[in-house]
Amino acid sequence: MNITIIGTGNMARGIATRALEGGHGVTLLGTEQAKAEALAAELPGEAQAGAVGDPLSGDVVVLAVWYQAVPDVLARYGDQLDGKVVVDITNPVDPETYAPLTVEAGSVAQEIAATVPGAKVVKAFNTTFAGTLAAGTVGPLPTTVLIAGDDADAKALLAGIVTAGGLRAVDAGSLRRARELEPLGFLQLALAAAEKISWTGGFGLVA
Amino acid sequence: MNITIIGTGNMARGIATRALEGGHGVTLLGTEQAKAEALAAELPGEAQAGAVGDPLSGDVVVLAVWYQAVPDVLARYGDQLDGKVVVDITNPVDPETYAPLTVEAGSVAQEIAATVPGAKVVKAFNTTFAGTLAAGTVGPLPTTVLIAGDDADAKALLAGIVTAGGLRAVDAGSLRRARELEPLGFLQLALAAAEKISWTGGFGLVA
Repeated sequence: MNITIIGTGNMARGIATRALEGGHGVTLLGTEQAKAEALAAELPGEAQAGAVGDPLSGDVVVLAVWYQAVPDVLARYGDQLDGKVVVDITNPVDPETYAPLTVEAGSVAQEIAATVPGAKVVKAFNTTFAGTLAAGTVGPLPTTVLIAGDDADAKALLAGIVTAGGLRAVDAGSLRRARELEPLGFLQLALAAAEKISWTGGFGLVA
Repeated sequence: MNITIIGTGNMARGIATRALEGGHGVTLLGTEQAKAEALAAELPGEAQAGAVGDPLSGDVVVLAVWYQAVPDVLARYGDQLDGKVVVDITNPVDPETYAPLTVEAGSVAQEIAATVPGAKVVKAFNTTFAGTLAAGTVGPLPTTVLIAGDDADAKALLAGIVTAGGLRAVDAGSLRRARELEPLGFLQLALAAAEKISWTGGFGLVA
């Protein structure tokens, strides 16, 4: 499976690391190609690097960007997303003040699905800090990736990538569940920003 | 400290058990006094029982009822809640279909605070299943009670009761954070209803 990750930050690094561990191909696209190349070189496996604007080669496209960058990414790539599994990892938060932002559609994931209706949008990775993707654990628990979406095959595909990478995957229901996953992601960010938890902690899921 | 718990269900039992363990006085009020008396007799400590309509003796009043019962409880007791710490444990969910319900104020806790402005409303216990209150643990983690509210003293008071009862308490911020705690509580209910987790599991918080 080829996975394209748009973004070169800590979340891109964490998701790429897990995808490579599962034996998948990873292409990183950054606004600066040099950053994507530097990250690709650091990763434990063979990752490709490119610049934003390069065609999307992956069957799965991870939007590993801040919420604020989503409109630009969709404007640039919208016409290439038909039929692809598009993974939205964002939390609608002001990156400077950590104030929550209101999203008209009820969640970013639903907003993306409305903007690119041909894409199979799934919400995932918005409740896992990058540190817990790297560690594979949250404290004594395995890191759990909660996946919401309306396309069962797309969710199963992503769950396969997650579990092959050594993490747990849990189907959290339809894409509408992003309306709960995003507040959960925000709450976790707020607790870390307030130093109630560390950036390597957060919510772990006990079965 | 005297704590009045309105309700005789599993959550009332769990919260009463922990309050008694911390050495606090507990009075249970039920719509049927017989149920309150039966629960009081079963609890590991000296609990009082009464019927809905009895005056509220506690400094802390826990609304251990379903969201649907809140308006009735507030109509009956609203004029006794001035100055009291009122603990809202509810999640806005349809108890038959487990569909989430929209609350105009953004959260039940804020709705309650608007209805009884003299009360010190805190949101708590809505993300802890009754089973995890009884066990004191969620899997390998201590059960954590997330507390949100606008009155710092009220939050500290409840945190003291929680920790004396053997659980962890974390200040989740202002009452507005109920807008995230309630979706988290709902998500946990939905995951259990879908059999993705058990009713003794759920989200544990790793510091």
